[in-house]
This record gives sequence, C-alpha cells and structure tokens, in this order.
Amino acid sequence: MSKLNAVLAHIETDMGASLNRLMELLRIESISTDPEYAGQCRIAADWLVEELDKLGFRASRRDTTGHPMVVAHYDVGDGAPEGSPHVLFYGHYDVQPVDPLDLWKKPPFEPEIYEDAQGRKVIHGRGSSDDKGQLMTFVEACRAWKQQTGHLPCRVTILFEGEEESGSPSLVPFLEAHKDELSTDFALICDTTMWDEQTPAISTSLRGMTEEEVIIKAASRDLHSGFYGGPAANPIRVLGKIIGDMHDDEGKVTLEGFYEGVAEVPDELKAQWDDLGFDQVKFLGGVGLAYPAGEVGYSVLEQKWSRPTAEVNGIIGGYTGEGFKTVIPAQASAKISFRLVGKQDPEKVRSAFRAHVNARLPKDCEAEFINHGGSPAIEFNIDKPELKKATAALKDEWQKDTALIAMGGSIPIGGLFQSILDIDSLLIGFAHADDQIHSPNEKYNLESFTKGTRSWARILAALAE
Amino acid sequence: MSKLNAVLAHIETDMGASLNRLMELLRIESISTDPEYAGQCRIAADWLVEELDKLGFRASRRDTTGHPMVVAHYDVGDGAPEGSPHVLFYGHYDVQPVDPLDLWKKPPFEPEIYEDAQGRKVIHGRGSSDDKGQLMTFVEACRAWKQQTGHLPCRVTILFEGEEESGSPSLVPFLEAHKDELSTDFALICDTTMWDEQTPAISTSLRGMTEEEVIIKAASRDLHSGFYGGPAANPIRVLGKIIGDMHDDEGKVTLEGFYEGVAEVPDELKAQWDDLGFDQVKFLGGVGLAYPAGEVGYSVLEQKWSRPTAEVNGIIGGYTGEGFKTVIPAQASAKISFRLVGKQDPEKVRSAFRAHVNARLPKDCEAEFINHGGSPAIEFNIDKPELKKATAALKDEWQKDTALIAMGGSIPIGGLFQSILDIDSLLIGFAHADDQIHSPNEKYNLESFTKGTRSWARILAALAE
Repeated sequence: MSKLNAVLAHIETDMGASLNRLMELLRIESISTDPEYAGQCRIAADWLVEELDKLGFRASRRDTTGHPMVVAHYDVGDGAPEGSPHVLFYGHYDVQPVDPLDLWKKPPFEPEIYEDAQGRKVIHGRGSSDDKGQLMTFVEACRAWKQQTGHLPCRVTILFEGEEESGSPSLVPFLEAHKDELSTDFALICDTTMWDEQTPAISTSLRGMTEEEVIIKAASRDLHSGFYGGPAANPIRVLGKIIGDMHDDEGKVTLEGFYEGVAEVPDELKAQWDDLGFDQVKFLGGVGLAYPAGEVGYSVLEQKWSRPTAEVNGIIGGYTGEGFKTVIPAQASAKISFRLVGKQDPEKVRSAFRAHVNARLPKDCEAEFINHGGSPAIEFNIDKPELKKATAALKDEWQKDTALIAMGGSIPIGGLFQSILDIDSLLIGFAHADDQIHSPNEKYNLESFTKGTRSWARILAALAE
Repeated sequence: MSKLNAVLAHIETDMGASLNRLMELLRIESISTDPEYAGQCRIAADWLVEELDKLGFRASRRDTTGHPMVVAHYDVGDGAPEGSPHVLFYGHYDVQPVDPLDLWKKPPFEPEIYEDAQGRKVIHGRGSSDDKGQLMTFVEACRAWKQQTGHLPCRVTILFEGEEESGSPSLVPFLEAHKDELSTDFALICDTTMWDEQTPAISTSLRGMTEEEVIIKAASRDLHSGFYGGPAANPIRVLGKIIGDMHDDEGKVTLEGFYEGVAEVPDELKAQWDDLGFDQVKFLGGVGLAYPAGEVGYSVLEQKWSRPTAEVNGIIGGYTGEGFKTVIPAQASAKISFRLVGKQDPEKVRSAFRAHVNARLPKDCEAEFINHGGSPAIEFNIDKPELKKATAALKDEWQKDTALIAMGGSIPIGGLFQSILDIDSLLIGFAHADDQIHSPNEKYNLESFTKGTRSWARILAALAE
C-alpha cells in the first residue's frame, strides 16, 4: 500500500471525526460584517490556531484592526521534506450574515447532515460551503498525512482570513507587512466551485477590473425644463451619449486602445472549453435570457471568461420618484466597470474611458471622475508543472478529466498574491452553484467534503513528487 | 374726466382699504397640499364669495372632492352693458406650504408692507405674489369700476381655484361639468410675471408637453457582472443608446416626424423678441451656464419659447449608493419629456418616441411605457383684437410697450380652457422673478399691486370698447 493510499484510507476511517470538527467550526457565528459578532470571529480564529497546532503547524492568531488572520507554517524544520515545494493555502473562516432568518429551514448555526430532495447527503449550515467546509478539506487532508505518515509531504504555509465577506480591509496591509513570511512558490486558493457535480475544476484565469464613476455636471442647480429646457445643457443627455457610444454594433468596446493586451484563447484551452458541454441555453434561460449579448463571434463561455467588457452598473440623475417632475438636473452620474483579460492595463483602460467622456463633453459640462479601483486579469500558465500535477491528482480522485476553467469575476486574493507576493494561484474548490452561499439554507455536499479532502491529500502528494 | 380716469382715481383713493382687504386674505392659511389646512382653504373661498357678492357678482362656493372652487358671474342682468364681451378671469386662492419655516424673516401669514434693501415697497407674505396678490388686483379693479360707475364695463365670470399648488385634481371634472356655465369669449389668467419691473407683458404662447416614462427590462433578476458580464444584456446600456440617439449633432431631435407642426416664429413677433433686450449671458450665467445648448441657429429665447425639446428628466438603474457594486440590473428606467410648440401632436410625439425605443431594443430586452400625460402647445393669435386692446391698455398704464412674450413651460389651465371650454387665454400678470414664490420670504411689489389693479381697470375698459 503506497503512502498516499494509506492516507486516503485514513481519511475514510477518520471521516466521522473530521465531520465533527467541521461541525464545531460551523457552530461558531463568525459573521464578519456585524461588529456584534467580532468575539465569535476571534473564537473561530483561535479554534483554527489550536487545530493547526495539533497538526504540527506553528500557528498563530494575528490581530489586525479588524478581525484576526490565522497564519500557520509547516516547513522543513517541522518535518517537511527538504527541497519540497512550498505552497501557500488560503481560505476564510468568516461567513455571511444570516438574514432573512425566517427563510432558513433549520437554524443557520446548528449544522447537521441530512438527505436533500435529490437524494444527496448535504451538510447544512452557514459557512458550510463558503468557506469553512472548503478550508477544512485542506486541514483534514493535512491531518491525514500527519497522522498516517508522521509529516506533511511538502512545505505548507496557511493563511486564513476573517474579513473576506466584509471587503478584506486588513488584507493588503497584512500581506505587505508579511511579504517575506508569506513568500512561497505558489498559492492554493479553496473558495471556488467544481465544473459540475462529477467534474473537478481548476480556474486558470480570472478577469481583472477597472471600476470608475463619472459625474457629469452642468448648471449650478436643478432647473425647471419649462424655463430652461432648450438652452440649458442636460447632464443625463450627455451621459446617454457617453454610454450609447461605448459599444459598436458588434458589441465591441469603442474606447481607444481598449483591446491592447487582449489575446485569443489558446486553441488547446478553447478545445477543452468546447468539450465542457456548457449549456448556454440553460445558463441564459435561468435568468430569463436567450441570446448572448456580448461580442459577435464569441461563444457565451468566451464572452464571460476570456473577453473584456464595459458595463454600466448604476446610473442616476434627475427625478426618480413616483410620477413626473420636469427637472433638468444639475448633475447625473454613472458607475461603470470594465472586466479585463490578458494583459489589459486597468489604468490605461481608465484613461481611455476618461478620454472617451471628455471627448463627448459639450460646452458648459464638466466631468468628475471617481476611481473605484482596479486590478489586472490573472492568468495561470497552463503549461506549468504544478498545474499538470494538480490536474492529474484531481482526475485520479474524481475519475474524470479536470476542467480547466476561467472565472468571469475578479477574486481579489488571487490578484493580491500576484501583485504583492509575486506568486501565482491555483483556484481549486469543491463547492457547487446550488450551495446557496450568501443565501438562506447554505449547504455543502457531503461528497464535496469527503472527496475534497481526498483530493487535497492527492494534490499534496503530487506536488511533492 | 372720463369714466376710466375716475375709476383710476378711485383706485388711488381706496388703495389703503384695498391693501387691508388683501392682508385679510393673506392671513388665511390656505395651504392646499396639507389636509390639515382644508378648513383654511374653505375659509378663503368663503371670504372671496363674500367679497364678490358685495361687488354685485352672483358668487358661490362650489365644493369638490378636494378644495372648493369659487365661481362668480356678472352678466347683463347684473348691470353689464348688452353686447359687451364676456371674459373669464382665473386665479387661485391656495398657496404653497411654508416650510422651511425658519428661513422666513417674518411669519408667512402675518402680511405687512416694508421697504426692501433695494428701496422698493413690498408686500410680505405667503401668497402675496402667487396668487392672492395677483387675483386681488382684478377684484379691486372690478370694485373700483362698480363703486365709481355703478357697474362693470363688460360681462365677467370669475373662477378661483383652490388646488393649483396641489395638482388641480378637481379642475378637469369641474370644467367638464360646468362647460356651459363657464363658456365665455376668452379667458384672462393672472398668474404670470412682467417682462421686467418696468415692462408689462402678455404671454401669447405656451409650450405643450408629452411626458413619458420608459422601463427597459432584460434578465429576470439583477445579475453579477463577474458571472454574467458579456453574455447578458444590460438595460442601462440600452437606455444610454436610446438617449444618445435622440438628438443629432446640431441639437435637433431625431424622432421620426417630430417637427411636424413646428412653424418658425412670425417675423413681427421675432423682431419684437429681438427688441426685448433679453440678456442671455445673465440668463444662463445665473445658473452657471454660458452656452445655449439647444438647436444650432436659434437664439436662447427661441430655444426656450418657440422650439420643441426632448429632455431626460430622470434616470435610474442598478446600484446608485456609495461605493461600487458590479451588478447588471434587471431593469433601468428614464422619465422623458418633450416640450411642444405650434401644432405638434402630443400623442404622435409619444408614438414616435416609442418607435425610437423599440427600434433600439436588442434581443432579450423589452420596453414598458408609462404615459404621464400630455398637452398641446397653446398659441394666441397676435392679430386678435382683444390682444391689441389689452396691449394698448397695459402700455397706457406702464408707459412702456407691452412685451408679447412666450412661456417655455406649460400652464395647464390655459390648455384646459382651450381643450374643454374651447376659448383662448391671455396671460397677464404683474409678478416678478424675484418674488420668491414657492420659497420662504415671498413678496409682491407694492407697485405690482397698485399698477396691476389700475392695469385691469384699463383692460376692462379697453375690452368693452
């Protein structure tokens, strides 16, 4: 029996105890957005420190001006093989608020395992999927390695955050202050989903983002359109023109230089995407849509994974209540975001947008811009050996090819690891789209937990080879 | 001494008493928007009925589901000369609310005459200008005619409304129900301003209006732009395109057939407008603007008086709070109004707008329209004899040519008199732009009241000739 097989067998044997430990963590009401639960966040952090200590990590709670971080090291001196790769594992122990409480069928912080309507065994409870259940798959995999073989197969640093659900205010300063301590070969982030219930997935790219607000100002006060309508500039009209001109008839963004750094998806990856069997009718139909609205000539998956966008996320101006008021407002504003891919520069895109606005400003109008931040897209080179190893390990566990997928959204942690720690991230998770994260009745499939734990055991073995 | 001169002399002699009567009316707190003041509105109506009764009118309070109307008749049987023209005089006795009360330098319902910083004698009080002071100029002119000569010089019907400041909900049903009773030769409406403090004015045209709301709907719920951005239609983008395409580069409205029924201003009137000495730098500069934003090739006065417009008066969609949310909203909406001139048909304009929207609806999007009403523009033929007579009478009083002006806004009463009673209206008023109507510290120049009363005495004489 190989070491790995013994470890996997240990996971099976110990599963009852593993689940009990997860239940303990799920009972802690570590809601990060509500200051009333700050004590519970600290209790969750301390609980994790104690568990990691038991596994031979040098673990500590690191207090911040918000909720604490948990940092734990398992290095050569702790038993890791010399020369083995050094991975940084990231998860978060804080959870979303639970309101509206009356929509929960069982109390959110009283976890239990039950069989759902589809016959699946699922773990009920806030945080079961996002992200306590997920992070515990890694902890339990480490435990099995430690208990079965006496040590972990490679060097591991763990970072657990307690503010992921409340904007991560302490994250950047913490990473910057502990850059050396957290410096590793690459990161493993466990906060994402599988492709479907049978198919493991690794996210190899995430779109970046430029977030910008524009406020168009004209007259010094709101005007009555009976008295001023005609001669007075109307900021909403200006905004309409700016937005209307931002795309061409083919759905392409018209900003100057917008597509600089945008590459086509490599054929190999595109072929793999085509093989995923993505059901675009179901995807769009689920939200009442039927036609892809992005760039002509690209599939829905490409439109959301590998193509950049310009979207208006909010707009307001003038009278917006019941009935009608014939006001010409003094100002109108819009929040506009750009999803970025490849090597698009978030700040160049911001400049191009500002130029697009300024070129459409009539006399008497001015534009004020608010920079709401930005981050470049992230791409993990699919030829890297650690990706190949993780892919193979996941396939071994799930007996199905690992889907190399992308994410249309921006997970800030991946970008920060890249920009501050200068390391790439592999995003591997076992959650599902129906886990009801951020909603009442959150659950995590029991299989996600058991096979997730086994998956990490395999991945650690594969990376150490 | 002519009859008119005797009447004018009587006005001078009686001015103290006239002002006392106005003060009585100003002390009544007839705020129409606040149900708590309904009793005060009724008291004001009764006060007017009693005053008009004293002048030989057959006056009565007409209760409605809201605040009462006051209707009074003075016809041939009451002493008016046979064959004399029959005029309908309109004013309103209700006033605006007074909040914020702490910005009033004197209590709003304790009227008094004082000298202001510019050395003008002014009548202080809520309603002094809008519209109690104005309507009393007509009542006092009638009184002088009656007391001095024993009768009015022509047939007069008076309609005083008590809901003008609260949307006039009873007006249309009342006009329709009393169409025969209110049927006269033409109407005199006293609720407007002079051209400037020296120059009397008659408004001979008012722009009409089409008011419309459009709601663009796409997905069945708000979407996250990380997950759906690209493939999902964005209603704000659609709205931006609709608005951006509504004007061409010359400021012309692009809706199909929009300019049907729009005529150029007659040369005579245009020459008179040019002579008004309108200070466009001051007009625009007063609200922080410097450049006319309307159709290229038209003066500011034309842009606001005689040219139609398309304006967005309100827009909302997506996330509009602090910070940023990358939502693709399920819907976005805009309130859009068109100021109309000449013979433009409000409903044809509405249809053209809806066609403009529908032509720009991408797949998966639908538009819902809310009709917020409409009314055609009003034009008083400047060659009509009653206009010439009123113009000359005003010139006699003010010793300055009467300005024939237009109004960029829509005064519903004029349109309703035209559409329901089928009569034209002359809008003659003595208020000033600095009267602070609808604001704290409302005032009416004493000269507006004295010379306004004298003006009506002259106009009645002129019309009777």
